[in-house]
Amino acid sequence: MLHHPATDEIRLEGVMHALSDPVRLQMVRALADRDTPCACGSIDVPVSKSTRTHHWRVLRENGLIRQTEQGTAKLTELRRSDLEARFPGLLQIVLNATPAPAEPASTLAS
Amino acid sequence: MLHHPATDEIRLEGVMHALSDPVRLQMVRALADRDTPCACGSIDVPVSKSTRTHHWRVLRENGLIRQTEQGTAKLTELRRSDLEARFPGLLQIVLNATPAPAEPASTLAS
Repeated sequence: MLHHPATDEIRLEGVMHALSDPVRLQMVRALADRDTPCACGSIDVPVSKSTRTHHWRVLRENGLIRQTEQGTAKLTELRRSDLEARFPGLLQIVLNATPAPAEPASTLAS
Repeated sequence: MLHHPATDEIRLEGVMHALSDPVRLQMVRALADRDTPCACGSIDVPVSKSTRTHHWRVLRENGLIRQTEQGTAKLTELRRSDLEARFPGLLQIVLNATPAPAEPASTLAS
């Protein structure tokens, strides 16, 4: 059972902590570019699997993402609406400040 | 000589780290409520002097505040315009989410 804080338990300092790491910022950026929950292993970051797992946990426990177990994978999505309810506008500012890794010119994130 | 990053050296993850601590959030809140630079010792937080000094350094080295030495005191102010240039809207969202300590009803922060 994966722990997720309720929306009203999401704390600003926890969100700030979760976003204080450049790898986690890239993971949030990658999730934001996807329309549907994705297998967490599909997000490519230049760290070991155990470090990646750690980063997902930090993001989840601080209310940034929701993970649902599906077999051996975890379907992962950004808690956009919960974050927007708690800190309106914050996520978009963070995304604006976090460039995506090299994107094909025809698929700019909306 | 106190180190301050240039505006274009201010990094999102550093700002996030600086704001990931509830005491530092209160210090930023208190500075935001002041119109002029203030002696850093005048911001009242429930930690030891050495811890407070540490927090000021974290805020300064990550570009949140500017400190100017004046005798034994440090005049301290929020780098509002620099932060607004780097991450438009971020500071206000953080302030919105960080209640001031009990304020007299007649002096609501603008």
